[in-house]
Amino acid sequence: MPNTPTSALPRCEARREQILDAAAVCFAREGFHGSSIAKLSKEAGMSPGHIYHFFENKEAIIAALIERRLECAQEMARHFDSTEDVFQALLDRVDIGLKEKTDRESAALELEIFAEAARNPAVASILIEADRIKRDCLIRVTQKARQARTSGQETRDPKTQTESMVAETEILMALFDGLSTRAISHPELDREALTPLLRKVMRALL
Amino acid sequence: MPNTPTSALPRCEARREQILDAAAVCFAREGFHGSSIAKLSKEAGMSPGHIYHFFENKEAIIAALIERRLECAQEMARHFDSTEDVFQALLDRVDIGLKEKTDRESAALELEIFAEAARNPAVASILIEADRIKRDCLIRVTQKARQARTSGQETRDPKTQTESMVAETEILMALFDGLSTRAISHPELDREALTPLLRKVMRALL
Repeated sequence: MPNTPTSALPRCEARREQILDAAAVCFAREGFHGSSIAKLSKEAGMSPGHIYHFFENKEAIIAALIERRLECAQEMARHFDSTEDVFQALLDRVDIGLKEKTDRESAALELEIFAEAARNPAVASILIEADRIKRDCLIRVTQKARQARTSGQETRDPKTQTESMVAETEILMALFDGLSTRAISHPELDREALTPLLRKVMRALL
Repeated sequence: MPNTPTSALPRCEARREQILDAAAVCFAREGFHGSSIAKLSKEAGMSPGHIYHFFENKEAIIAALIERRLECAQEMARHFDSTEDVFQALLDRVDIGLKEKTDRESAALELEIFAEAARNPAVASILIEADRIKRDCLIRVTQKARQARTSGQETRDPKTQTESMVAETEILMALFDGLSTRAISHPELDREALTPLLRKVMRALL
């Protein structure tokens, strides 16, 4: 972010968010490569110069979008942290997660980021690092959910426990990310029917 | 496919496959939009004219790649159909599915197809139709797995049964497709640790 007097920060922050919102729309609709700075500028209702003032290039915008998604995941982890029964809180939040992951616009952007990361090492390293932070947060949530479920009476040895929680978290991340692919391959998907099954999977895993 | 004498078909088929293999590599590495017919032609070791002889445009190539993936899924469904205990066969095949879905090249192509479908209505309609056929195959597999598990003693009423199988299939499709996103976000993923958990999810669902 450029140097600005403190009083200008909120407006500055709002402008930055405005660019990211426009970029999310453009990337989802036309792909990363199909979205020129000129198109972003039109969507954001800002001059290209303004966009370059905040972001050096398109990679920096994609990095900021990945960062924004990570912040949402961290916020969600904090929410779980603050609840007494983390396992129940996870079950309760399944329908929100399902709705978010199967939102068409959001799924399109997510899949575009994955596809870009698969071929662009700079984007890959940003995504991999964000994934590491998100995963660590979610492993802690999984651990607390397990504690809530077993009332702290965990019977597995600590090494097995840790390995299991890492793998359980991976499976849950795969499942929820996979819902985004379903939103594209099967737009008429009966979302409501999936909620109880997602809970069933969580009960089986945690 | 162009009109060719029957004797020329195997060679013709081999050429077509050669183009599709090259396209799979190009699309995964450079994206659909970054892969010009000139680049495909270089990768395939064929003139652009040859490529146009088989495929009208890049959309037709992506359609053929989707078709090829569908054929693999249909082949897998036939394999399950031919086994006596479909549920056990599903559990046995989990590690192959995991390996295929987390193969980096294959994941990159899959995610590129999803991302392209999210913004290109022509590709979307091909993907959606292929997904419908694949899903129907897999719902039949789910049904047979359930029959194998309950030894035909299904206690749910037929309507509930059908609805459940549709939703269970969706969840399993999401989970396996989601493994492709994990291969990109977390390349160091401990694949072996996931096999028992994928089986656990199948046992919980079916």
